Amino acid sequence: MRMFLEPAKFAAASHCGVMGTVTFREEKAALLVLAAISLALITILSVWKLKKLKYRLVNETGGAMFYGMLLGVAVRYLRFDGVPLMENHSCTCPGLNSTPHLVMVNISSQTHCYRHVGEMNPKSSLDSTSHMETFDLDVLFNVFLPPIIFYGAYTLDQRRFIANLGSVLTFSFFGTLISCLCIGVCIYGVTRLMVLLGQAADGDYLLVDCLLFGAITSATDPVSILGLLSDLRVDLDLHTLLFGESVLNDAVAIVLTHAITTYDPKGAGHAFDPSAFLHSIGSFLGILLGSFCMGFLFTVMTALISFHPLPPRLNYNLTIRRNKFSRSTCPLLETSVVLLLSWSSFLSAKASGLSGIVAVLFCGLSQARYTILNVSEEGRSRTKQLFEVFSFLGEIFIYSYMGYILLTFPHHVFKALFISGAFLSIFISRACNIYPLSLLLNLGRTNKITCSFQHFMVFAGLRGAVAFSLAVRDTTTEAKRTILTTTLLLAGFTIWVLGAAADPLLHSLDIRMGEDSEEDSKDFSSEVAMRGPDTARGLWHNLDHKFLKPLLTHCGPPLTDLLPRWCGVFARIFSPPQIQEDEEEFCEIEPHTPPLNLDKTEHPPTPDDSGSEHRDDLLEGDLGLGTGPVNTSEPSVDASKIV
Amino acid sequence: MRMFLEPAKFAAASHCGVMGTVTFREEKAALLVLAAISLALITILSVWKLKKLKYRLVNETGGAMFYGMLLGVAVRYLRFDGVPLMENHSCTCPGLNSTPHLVMVNISSQTHCYRHVGEMNPKSSLDSTSHMETFDLDVLFNVFLPPIIFYGAYTLDQRRFIANLGSVLTFSFFGTLISCLCIGVCIYGVTRLMVLLGQAADGDYLLVDCLLFGAITSATDPVSILGLLSDLRVDLDLHTLLFGESVLNDAVAIVLTHAITTYDPKGAGHAFDPSAFLHSIGSFLGILLGSFCMGFLFTVMTALISFHPLPPRLNYNLTIRRNKFSRSTCPLLETSVVLLLSWSSFLSAKASGLSGIVAVLFCGLSQARYTILNVSEEGRSRTKQLFEVFSFLGEIFIYSYMGYILLTFPHHVFKALFISGAFLSIFISRACNIYPLSLLLNLGRTNKITCSFQHFMVFAGLRGAVAFSLAVRDTTTEAKRTILTTTLLLAGFTIWVLGAAADPLLHSLDIRMGEDSEEDSKDFSSEVAMRGPDTARGLWHNLDHKFLKPLLTHCGPPLTDLLPRWCGVFARIFSPPQIQEDEEEFCEIEPHTPPLNLDKTEHPPTPDDSGSEHRDDLLEGDLGLGTGPVNTSEPSVDASKIV
Repeated sequence: MRMFLEPAKFAAASHCGVMGTVTFREEKAALLVLAAISLALITILSVWKLKKLKYRLVNETGGAMFYGMLLGVAVRYLRFDGVPLMENHSCTCPGLNSTPHLVMVNISSQTHCYRHVGEMNPKSSLDSTSHMETFDLDVLFNVFLPPIIFYGAYTLDQRRFIANLGSVLTFSFFGTLISCLCIGVCIYGVTRLMVLLGQAADGDYLLVDCLLFGAITSATDPVSILGLLSDLRVDLDLHTLLFGESVLNDAVAIVLTHAITTYDPKGAGHAFDPSAFLHSIGSFLGILLGSFCMGFLFTVMTALISFHPLPPRLNYNLTIRRNKFSRSTCPLLETSVVLLLSWSSFLSAKASGLSGIVAVLFCGLSQARYTILNVSEEGRSRTKQLFEVFSFLGEIFIYSYMGYILLTFPHHVFKALFISGAFLSIFISRACNIYPLSLLLNLGRTNKITCSFQHFMVFAGLRGAVAFSLAVRDTTTEAKRTILTTTLLLAGFTIWVLGAAADPLLHSLDIRMGEDSEEDSKDFSSEVAMRGPDTARGLWHNLDHKFLKPLLTHCGPPLTDLLPRWCGVFARIFSPPQIQEDEEEFCEIEPHTPPLNLDKTEHPPTPDDSGSEHRDDLLEGDLGLGTGPVNTSEPSVDASKIV
Repeated sequence: MRMFLEPAKFAAASHCGVMGTVTFREEKAALLVLAAISLALITILSVWKLKKLKYRLVNETGGAMFYGMLLGVAVRYLRFDGVPLMENHSCTCPGLNSTPHLVMVNISSQTHCYRHVGEMNPKSSLDSTSHMETFDLDVLFNVFLPPIIFYGAYTLDQRRFIANLGSVLTFSFFGTLISCLCIGVCIYGVTRLMVLLGQAADGDYLLVDCLLFGAITSATDPVSILGLLSDLRVDLDLHTLLFGESVLNDAVAIVLTHAITTYDPKGAGHAFDPSAFLHSIGSFLGILLGSFCMGFLFTVMTALISFHPLPPRLNYNLTIRRNKFSRSTCPLLETSVVLLLSWSSFLSAKASGLSGIVAVLFCGLSQARYTILNVSEEGRSRTKQLFEVFSFLGEIFIYSYMGYILLTFPHHVFKALFISGAFLSIFISRACNIYPLSLLLNLGRTNKITCSFQHFMVFAGLRGAVAFSLAVRDTTTEAKRTILTTTLLLAGFTIWVLGAAADPLLHSLDIRMGEDSEEDSKDFSSEVAMRGPDTARGLWHNLDHKFLKPLLTHCGPPLTDLLPRWCGVFARIFSPPQIQEDEEEFCEIEPHTPPLNLDKTEHPPTPDDSGSEHRDDLLEGDLGLGTGPVNTSEPSVDASKIV
């Protein structure tokens, strides 16, 4: 997002007039990016090698963090050897000969931080190390995080996700709230203990700080959980529950964190301020809803664009007919449009003061449900592959940066008690979240969450990039620096230790492993077909099938049939030109589309893949609670015709 | 490449503590990027619509430039309406309460420019408009230009390119030198005339400035030429000549421009300085060779990496065996490695003071020749698709920025005489370049460059992104601002007017259109097989077939057979583990790989595609000159076995 004018180096380079003497700064930037790229390459290759040797305990995230730490060590040693790398910080305007009209001054947050820390800890000897940081945080979180989140949401197994929607929403919404409160209270107890033991002053850690820490560490990390689950290939329902929860609780944790910081400046320390509290709750709900709507708005735009000018069949015919030399191919356009509009959802949310990550998350979820149906097969797989590469590289960059920061951030505050309290409280909070909610959910679910699943869910609370991004944004007070340090340690511990222990644990809990999504999806749909659709088709189903799908995709009955007569004009405008005559054909074509599973695409889509993302409507009345009685009056054939 | 620390906004945002009040600057940045994205979307959709209506005269580049100009008009009107958008330029450190230890000052080149212009033209009323610029030039040229150049080089039809290598090299190297000198001399004449007519002062336009203009406008633009050629589907030999020339002459023009700027500071005005001249020539050759080696070095690294840990067959088996849930898929890794290492070639060249664009160009050419053979089919098509999207979006962003700058750059210098001289001289120089060189080349070519081809080549000298990027880097003197203005007008004129006139011209010149690359490739190879390989297999063939291919790919005879005995250890180290036993199998598999043609990929690779990028060795002795007598002593079967 660094889109502002700052081409000092060009002016300077051309001023010197010599190509061989490009400004030092440009070379330095190139060297730093090269270092980052080398790190990524080493990570990719060594993790690949380890996997080839069947050593599955380390995945990309853990490897990236490890190499980032190695780089951190190297940087610290280089500094201690007296090699002051990159110390000439003010040498950026060699072309500046007289006073310019305007000067743009950028103070890095690290510099900003020194000021504060310098006051408290003037003996700190690591000040110059932090200049070495490889990435602009801005680049990291505005360029690399959104594709990771988008890809996570986009590749969520829609069918199973909707089948478990109720449970996933419960865990991610109420679970995160419980977790935040629980951690906050535990940590507040710990900080009181620290005050008693004389390890902290009375005003150092406020309740708000503790709740902030709770909110930050409540976000379980989709990236590392996906890595873990995919490597182990656990039971697919467990997979959906854990991954769906981790994707959605990021949204809740991000908004919760902001709501808590909104509360912060109003309250005068310990005193409870009801109006500020209400304001925080309002901000929480407002931002969550606003970001949801923003994400959905961009899906609607993408769906309508992809719907009108690029109908799949026309596109297909064009592709066949068109000579290879022609540049105006549709899959490229489709991919570009989806990419640009999805990124716009992030930017628009940012521009309007909402949460970009949350918007892009909902955008990804809804793009996968609606837009995808309007896009050609080739366009689908290309969009997915594009986001896959972005997400893969982004996750490597973010995790190596986490490892790097862990060893080079000059103002870590290690409080043994706080850290041990945090380690304890994340397990306590996870238990308080999973067990009671599972108990409640099992009352309604036909397909119960078993005890071993619950144990594994408590265990698999890995923390990662989103928690780090929330913790690193503010390091102005000692409490917040303690939070950053502790969050980094928690992330490292959960990714390495819990990640490595997951395999033996799954064995001892006797949970199915080595699941095959394709075979399973057949079992799953036949099972569903036997159960038949639920009579209690709720609001969601009505909305999705009667309005959203006909409005946004080529599937479903034409709007003209669904809407009342007085909406005729509207219905005709929003119906695609050929929906009536082609509907039958579509319903035949649809099952052959490749599935949007959680796999990273491994082979080109073949028409034999069991594509069943549209059979989810069989299940939608269930909402994961399986409450309704089995009703076979609507045969499944009928349901598949609606798709 | 903006990878420096500058998270002022995060510090500031968290200082304010409220999410709804993210700093103005972050929202502004988001809005600017949104504007750019909307522009890109409008371009994509409207050009698509036009193409659907069979109106082929406008392609993406022309459309993007047009919409950029529309935005420019809008911005100017908004400004004149007294809406001072984005004027608070220094409002970036709200969190700064006391003096920090270090301050990083960035002076934008525009600001830098004002200073100079302010001295000359204090009445300029457009100063604040330039703050509106949407993109950091740095982002534009370091992020968007390399993939465009890489993609151009990567998708060059290797077989035809090598068949025409001699001619392409002649046009791009000697042709560009001729063109530069010719334009320089013409323009120098024009500036003398301007001095005589009193339109310019004596010292305003030096010969060096004129030669600089010559070098800048000698770069014909691969992006718009590819657009033009692909839409019209002209004769494939003509296609290769024009496109190959446009890709390679960018390298020559870039290095030439820098060599001329190297000369600039040494010479005192008009006086000729032999030592500075020699220095310039040295710098020209040094940078050209250095960048070539840098690009090739990274290809060697990519090839060796892709060669050892990811042998295609092993990879293929893994892909089939591996469950869909597994994340460690090879195509993703291959794509990531190729992407990272190709980008590294650009960065390394930058870091060592060479030309990044030239390095990435040679990297693309050699990746397409060697690395691609080690990569799985899926990895190949994904790499290509990834760069295709980058290149497509990059070209839209760069061309809309060109259109935007044309209307909003506040310091345009429109000199009617200079501009008309420039328009005349680009045609004169093109004629002086193409006709004599074609005459010379036709002496050696069996497949002559016909007169109508020559006419069209003179005509199709479109200018674009590279010329713009060279012109915009330095706007410190009036001469250089005149150059920028004129270059932009030349680009606009050539893209719109020549682009639209190409279709009728081709008809009137009676040049084959609507060529089908697939059908043609069959004709071409049978034709070649009949002609048989040339006995005069030169240095290139030896190097390529006897060392590079065996060293870098799985194709060709094992190194142990090729190298003398005393190199045995070396040969064994660099031979892939399974080359001996698998060679036969490879030679059977190879012809089924999809071709790397100029098309933007339209459908997933099918094994039936006539993949013939390896048959080029049949032709390599020819070097496009067809000098040697036909010798059928080596049957083509033998040659195809070597591959």
